[in-house]
Amino acid sequence: MAESQSDWGGDRKPDQSGVVFEDAEYRLAVVDLLGAIAYGELSAFERLVDDAKLAPSMRDKVEMGAMATQEFGHVARLQDRIRELGSDPFEAMAPFEAAIDLFHAHTAPADWYEGLVKAYVGDGMAADFYREIAAYLDADTRDLIIASLEDSGHADFAVRHIRQAIAADPRLGGRLALWARRLMGEALTQAQRVAAERDALSALLAGGVDRPGLDLAAIGRMFNRITERHDDRMAEVGLSA
Amino acid sequence: MAESQSDWGGDRKPDQSGVVFEDAEYRLAVVDLLGAIAYGELSAFERLVDDAKLAPSMRDKVEMGAMATQEFGHVARLQDRIRELGSDPFEAMAPFEAAIDLFHAHTAPADWYEGLVKAYVGDGMAADFYREIAAYLDADTRDLIIASLEDSGHADFAVRHIRQAIAADPRLGGRLALWARRLMGEALTQAQRVAAERDALSALLAGGVDRPGLDLAAIGRMFNRITERHDDRMAEVGLSA
Repeated sequence: MAESQSDWGGDRKPDQSGVVFEDAEYRLAVVDLLGAIAYGELSAFERLVDDAKLAPSMRDKVEMGAMATQEFGHVARLQDRIRELGSDPFEAMAPFEAAIDLFHAHTAPADWYEGLVKAYVGDGMAADFYREIAAYLDADTRDLIIASLEDSGHADFAVRHIRQAIAADPRLGGRLALWARRLMGEALTQAQRVAAERDALSALLAGGVDRPGLDLAAIGRMFNRITERHDDRMAEVGLSA
Repeated sequence: MAESQSDWGGDRKPDQSGVVFEDAEYRLAVVDLLGAIAYGELSAFERLVDDAKLAPSMRDKVEMGAMATQEFGHVARLQDRIRELGSDPFEAMAPFEAAIDLFHAHTAPADWYEGLVKAYVGDGMAADFYREIAAYLDADTRDLIIASLEDSGHADFAVRHIRQAIAADPRLGGRLALWARRLMGEALTQAQRVAAERDALSALLAGGVDRPGLDLAAIGRMFNRITERHDDRMAEVGLSA
């Protein structure tokens, strides 16, 4: 979070949050965002459980199952918040179903290692993106989003396994690097699709008279930061981005 | 639990448990039983997430996902207890993989309602069986097993949905009644297979010089009770057993 450029929010008090939501457009945009994250987590849960079937051992399967249930645990909290904001959580999630399902349909892992890279790189990228947006939101929403994206040591599990596998078979590194690039491309494709379709979310990023937003240059910088962090993540497991 | 015939355990104090485990055979049998339940829950978790894909709405999918993560949550507690008893939890789970996987391979639901009946009837039956055995164990083990089998309202969800569906389409009732019978038959087949292969578990049921066990008549009564409860469960959703 340190490097994200928030002009807002850092010193907001929770009791000010109610005021923000008097702006109906802001409220709708936040509901949209929480709906997207909630569907993303529900979907990640299902895919992780699927991908865990490729695990070489029961121990690894249980570890990936733990990642999966952590994602599922966030869904209820996000849904509660959507209800508090006066919307139906399932209606809020529905608009993101097609794009997120397509992302997964286009990136079904062929083996355990592709599954691990997807869990590691995909979750990391999504978390970076949502954290960037969260920096422009009221404190309550921001805290909820950041808590929903927490990772309790599961990335370490992926890093350790991917590194070991590449050390044992260097050719695997080449294949996984290509795979990660495909994941990144597919994620950007679907993110653009969502941005084009969801006016409230786009308006949120653009800001308003009383709310700072992102101009084109700021959006460019945001994507640069996300890409840099993706590269760091790749380097961490010994893959060139 | 009220109607299960425990000659033992009801008034045992937790601090007596240590003594029981000085009997190596008893310890192994308990490890076996906890391993079976743990693999059963891990496996149920995976299948429920799979079957949730058949859900007619996102709301139903989330509800079944909640059932699934509850099962997964029990795995870690059972594994911790196996470790406390000095065994490796994955080694303890491994002997039950084949039988439980075969049960699921032979009972893949064709639609959402078959999945619901399987979750409701299958979990209920397994829980009855383990509770019956738990009555013959030390208090600590018994409490852990009973906690692992708790159902927090998910059966109600299944009952409500199955009833509604049968009311709307009575022919569905006939198909689901046949399906439940198949589930029962397949479960008994695999349970017999496990009993034949796992000497420690069979010895546990047979008892020892200082430990009450089940004679053939008592085993017969136990299966009668399990069957009766299965019939009650079927009647509850409006199906004839």
